[in-house]
Amino acid sequence: MLANPNAFANSPLDRAAHHRRDGAWIAQALERPEARLVVLHRTLVFAIEQDGRRQCGWLAAAARDAVGSDLVIFLGLDRDGAPCFAIEAPADRDAPFTEIGAFVELRMLAMELGGGGDLAILACAKSLIDWHGRHRFCANCGGQSVVSEAGWKRECPACKAEHFPRTDPVVIMVPAIGDKCLLGRQKRFPKGMYSALAGFIEPGESIEEAVARETLEEAGLTVTRVRYHSTQPWPFPSSLMIGALAEVGDDRETIDHYELEGARWFTREEARAMIEGRHPECSCPPAIAIAHQLIKTWAFESQAD
Amino acid sequence: MLANPNAFANSPLDRAAHHRRDGAWIAQALERPEARLVVLHRTLVFAIEQDGRRQCGWLAAAARDAVGSDLVIFLGLDRDGAPCFAIEAPADRDAPFTEIGAFVELRMLAMELGGGGDLAILACAKSLIDWHGRHRFCANCGGQSVVSEAGWKRECPACKAEHFPRTDPVVIMVPAIGDKCLLGRQKRFPKGMYSALAGFIEPGESIEEAVARETLEEAGLTVTRVRYHSTQPWPFPSSLMIGALAEVGDDRETIDHYELEGARWFTREEARAMIEGRHPECSCPPAIAIAHQLIKTWAFESQAD
Repeated sequence: MLANPNAFANSPLDRAAHHRRDGAWIAQALERPEARLVVLHRTLVFAIEQDGRRQCGWLAAAARDAVGSDLVIFLGLDRDGAPCFAIEAPADRDAPFTEIGAFVELRMLAMELGGGGDLAILACAKSLIDWHGRHRFCANCGGQSVVSEAGWKRECPACKAEHFPRTDPVVIMVPAIGDKCLLGRQKRFPKGMYSALAGFIEPGESIEEAVARETLEEAGLTVTRVRYHSTQPWPFPSSLMIGALAEVGDDRETIDHYELEGARWFTREEARAMIEGRHPECSCPPAIAIAHQLIKTWAFESQAD
Repeated sequence: MLANPNAFANSPLDRAAHHRRDGAWIAQALERPEARLVVLHRTLVFAIEQDGRRQCGWLAAAARDAVGSDLVIFLGLDRDGAPCFAIEAPADRDAPFTEIGAFVELRMLAMELGGGGDLAILACAKSLIDWHGRHRFCANCGGQSVVSEAGWKRECPACKAEHFPRTDPVVIMVPAIGDKCLLGRQKRFPKGMYSALAGFIEPGESIEEAVARETLEEAGLTVTRVRYHSTQPWPFPSSLMIGALAEVGDDRETIDHYELEGARWFTREEARAMIEGRHPECSCPPAIAIAHQLIKTWAFESQAD
């Protein structure tokens, strides 16, 4: 209904946020037999293998006692009303539960699964756990802050400041003119891979201003029109990728080599070939990346759109 | 070209971000005779009166020495190439420059000016200065962090963590079905005022998911379609307001009285009357708020849109 082509979006959970402030409800929910949890360890997520395929390693709530985690995050209720939680296994100890599964990179698991509700749940869990790990102290006074609201807030006992999880908005766009679009590559990319341009939205900027600024900064191109495409929660560590198609005024690019190793214009036919994996030299990011969805939309729409 | 109806958007500055890392360039830019700066004091912005009207109080860079501020933020280059900066006058001293102007609330100044590039510049300056004020310590280790990159970053000398200014994405939407839309009111609103619904986007959520969740949480309505409208940088303290029109499946609302004091359905004709200030009982937020622009767009579009 609210179709979104992006991996990590489309969570099946009802966040049921009104329960977060109710410590007694949370404690009882953890005792319910149908309660289940995802576990992270040193930024990796717990996965189990079933029918020769890895998937999210859901565990019973008792796993929390086995792990000894103090951080319990209430993620929401699943479609059957079962409460779902995330916990972090202590980083200073070895990974638990290795007899039944393994801790893997979420990006790898996403590549294997392609999409689905568990990825959205894991994305949320990973962003929150990462945030707690890097925000144990109060940015306002330097004191140690404490977890509250079932993992959705930190409070400072000393100065009373409240801290909420970060979500950093990022614009990601495909600049195009007529029948060609510009894609860039960073040094760290696999050979031949090109992708959409991207950058953080800064304070005092609209989405469209950020699209125009980043396109000008990275490629020297002037944006004349911005079309919003979709968003993707990107849990590395906690970005909101805001995807757009950007029309530019001309094709005289000037690449900023601080940001990009290079850039190249692709026709719609070439872009289609990249999406379908049949371009002779070049590739684009995999389907789990919003860049792929942006390029795909541009490649398969008629020029008049 | 990239039309945006919202106050605080449409900055006339080229952020020229590549200069931020160049301390020598920044120091020289501050010495240039055409350099100019905005000043904040205890969250208020410096304004001067001209022709009986208050406006942004731009000062020469020498004002920095008079104020004794250590925090100098490079905002960008204006259309004539003049470098623009923001500084904060020390909060523990009285307001400076009171012989030529006054420190005023940015929201009040925005109401008086209605829009324009200076508001976008002040919005950016206020968000950044507020952020520095509340983030003097490293959230990772609790040590004191230091300003770097001309005010666009803080670094921790102890643990080497880097911290960037926050921009918190918020969804704000007008839920509608057929010829009527639902607007809500909070206790703190002036009598008779109703506005769009809104809430922070959480980790692991797309824009559309956040619109649906907040509409369900606050009003018990199921969203069936989301149309992106525009964004507004909202410097109180540092939100990115992402505006949308949301179609809902029915009109059987259930109001969450923790979030809202009440809500009411308005026809398009009533919404037009509110926008034009001629509704007999009700009002909507002023034109500087994106809520106003959302209601206006919905009120004046034909039902078939």
